[in-house]
Amino acid sequence: MSRAILQHRRFISLEGGEGAGKTSAIAAIREQLQRSGGEIVLTREPGGTPLAEQLRALLLGKHEEILVPEAELLMMFAARAQHVRNVIQPALQRGAWVISDRFTDSSYAYQGAGRGLDLSLLETLEQNVVGLRPGLTLLLDLDVREGRARTAGRDLWPDRIESERDDFFERVREGFRRRAAAEPERFRVIDAAQTPQAVAADVGGAVRAWMEAAEA
Amino acid sequence: MSRAILQHRRFISLEGGEGAGKTSAIAAIREQLQRSGGEIVLTREPGGTPLAEQLRALLLGKHEEILVPEAELLMMFAARAQHVRNVIQPALQRGAWVISDRFTDSSYAYQGAGRGLDLSLLETLEQNVVGLRPGLTLLLDLDVREGRARTAGRDLWPDRIESERDDFFERVREGFRRRAAAEPERFRVIDAAQTPQAVAADVGGAVRAWMEAAEA
Ligand SMILES: Nc1ncnc2c1ncn2[C@@H]1O[C@H](COP(=O)(O)OP(=O)(O)O)[C@@H](O)[C@H]1O
Ligand SMILES: Nc1ncnc2c1ncn2[C@@H]1O[C@H](COP(=O)(O)OP(=O)(O)O)[C@@H](O)[C@H]1O
Ligand SMILES: [Mg+2]
Ligand SMILES: [Mg+2]
Repeated sequence: MSRAILQHRRFISLEGGEGAGKTSAIAAIREQLQRSGGEIVLTREPGGTPLAEQLRALLLGKHEEILVPEAELLMMFAARAQHVRNVIQPALQRGAWVISDRFTDSSYAYQGAGRGLDLSLLETLEQNVVGLRPGLTLLLDLDVREGRARTAGRDLWPDRIESERDDFFERVREGFRRRAAAEPERFRVIDAAQTPQAVAADVGGAVRAWMEAAEA
Repeated sequence: MSRAILQHRRFISLEGGEGAGKTSAIAAIREQLQRSGGEIVLTREPGGTPLAEQLRALLLGKHEEILVPEAELLMMFAARAQHVRNVIQPALQRGAWVISDRFTDSSYAYQGAGRGLDLSLLETLEQNVVGLRPGLTLLLDLDVREGRARTAGRDLWPDRIESERDDFFERVREGFRRRAAAEPERFRVIDAAQTPQAVAADVGGAVRAWMEAAEA
């Protein structure tokens, strides 16, 4: 059942906890990519297609019924299968750059490290259902409480996952860092505690260096 | 990653293609179970819980966007995880009988044999996400076109899966038969081409014989 996972050079993902600055960092990436010309597709997870966004609504909504961790995991990967097959792969095939705000690493961090689900089940799903990894992943690493403080405004009505406790998000942060340490070629860890300007400069610099290395 | 799959004596599933008579057969099973007294829970898949029914609506609805086979598979198992954890297991734990109109065998038949998805992926999901099998599974086996003819009335607006072509349903039928052949202890194959009375008699007889054997 082990299939190859393709790494695609024109596919960049942003990862990190709540409020780390992922969405804010997209502008800095886009600015770098624009220099090389060509189409740029911005997308996000969970979501990115109409069906995947419907799954996102089920995943982030609050329900009377307990959402079983395994069901959460499978819905995340179902949404990702739609996203990869119907948006990301077609975009890469026509030569576009793709920037995704979260991708499979978020499942390893949230459903794996956060919920404690079996890593081998995640690996099986990544291989059989996703089969694709970004060429570059920027991890915005930030203290959990600092991230919370930043999103305090939008968290007046936190969604189901945002409502988890700090120890959950500590495990998520550690999960991200473990993944970055295990794949240093793909990951760049950005110190997200800096000013927005400094974070943007680090993000832009990482993308530029990586593009130059790829062209050399 | 291989975990034990528990087989539960008080859990009975009905399987078979479209129009084979699964829903009609529930009455005959219930009649037999009532003789032994106790609570009887009737349920169905995909569905059986509020969240699982929302997944069912996504699964059976027709969409502009292609529903990727792998996403279909994961959504089926996500719904099943909710169903097992929130309905079936609690019912079995309080000593009830559970009759489910479809269960995991339908995924092997439809997503496995029908869509051609990897059996080892299905086995991984069954082990890691379901972990439970019925003690008795009644397979209502019927010629595909005969089943179609029976549901002609309700098929004026067929759902997404009902809209598949006959060769899909031929593979589904073969998939069910292969599973029954591989697990003769759990399966009873019922000739669903008979009159409703004869099918009900066979179904009732199979349940009675199986209950007697379990008590002896
Ligand atoms: N480096 C930073 N320093 C202070 N606040 C920031 C920084 N980066 C982003 N923010 C603010 O923090 C909040 C969360 O940023 P956002 O980019 O939405 O994070 P994420 O997408 O990772 O949840 C926003 O209000 C944003 O303006
Ligand atoms: N043995 C039978 N012979 C003829 N018609 C049947 C028989 N069993 C069921 N039917 C009819 O066929 C249709 C489908 O039956 P149903 O129990 O809903 O099948 P399923 O749940 O397997 O799709 C219904 O209209 C039902 O009345
Ligand atoms: Mg964001
Ligand atoms: Mg039915």
